[in-house]
Amino acid sequence: MSRAIFPTSQDAEAAFYEALERTDLDAMMAVWAEDEEVVCVHPGGPRLTGFEQVRASWTAIFKSRQRLRVQLSNAVYAQGMMLAIHSVHENITVVGEPAPRPPVVTTNVYIRTGGGWRLLVHHASPAPQAPSRAEPGKILH
Amino acid sequence: MSRAIFPTSQDAEAAFYEALERTDLDAMMAVWAEDEEVVCVHPGGPRLTGFEQVRASWTAIFKSRQRLRVQLSNAVYAQGMMLAIHSVHENITVVGEPAPRPPVVTTNVYIRTGGGWRLLVHHASPAPQAPSRAEPGKILH
Repeated sequence: MSRAIFPTSQDAEAAFYEALERTDLDAMMAVWAEDEEVVCVHPGGPRLTGFEQVRASWTAIFKSRQRLRVQLSNAVYAQGMMLAIHSVHENITVVGEPAPRPPVVTTNVYIRTGGGWRLLVHHASPAPQAPSRAEPGKILH
Repeated sequence: MSRAIFPTSQDAEAAFYEALERTDLDAMMAVWAEDEEVVCVHPGGPRLTGFEQVRASWTAIFKSRQRLRVQLSNAVYAQGMMLAIHSVHENITVVGEPAPRPPVVTTNVYIRTGGGWRLLVHHASPAPQAPSRAEPGKILH
């Protein structure tokens, strides 16, 4: 399989969310670095590591046939020579549901490889319904 | 206030968790980049951005006087010239409780500044009690 080349981390990010919306496993895995060190945390889920574990999770998710539409907002970027960090809010609508879900807070890390930029870390966690200050005693830190 | 200089991202990480255990606000904030772009997500919490918002959250957390002991495990690192990524499990024991809490999955991003390495992103989310495969239908992605 020939793999797409993403000249920038933004291109890789666009391809990631397009693959997610299309539930296209090949396109999804073409975005990830082929690396034992890749990390994926789905909202509320455990940390998955390594290309095969990450692929298995997307295979299971795409099998559910739930279709999603994702709009990104509140992006904060940090760009280095080899690594790029994108902190975003994912605003997800499940197709068939009237309203978007509460936002998902996501840290995406991209790495520059010989074949362009690839996804190295995808860490997603559900934001609380009403964004609020940290409440002492309710959270660990 | 003179600020500590951290020659490596590992040094900054050690200082972060030491400040957390000691509930030392000055030491904690000395680890963070003085940047409007810093990002902090406490477990289950919203995304906080900017030095002042992050400082306010740690102030509130440390006021609770809950003392924590943190052991890191399962570290995965990616190191660039300007940015370093540490993916870790935080194994947290609340002082006075008999057993550790379920692990917290954390992505820490450090940036190299003129004053050494500093924390740019701290994204923490609770791992499920029993690590499991992604369950289709229960998670968004």
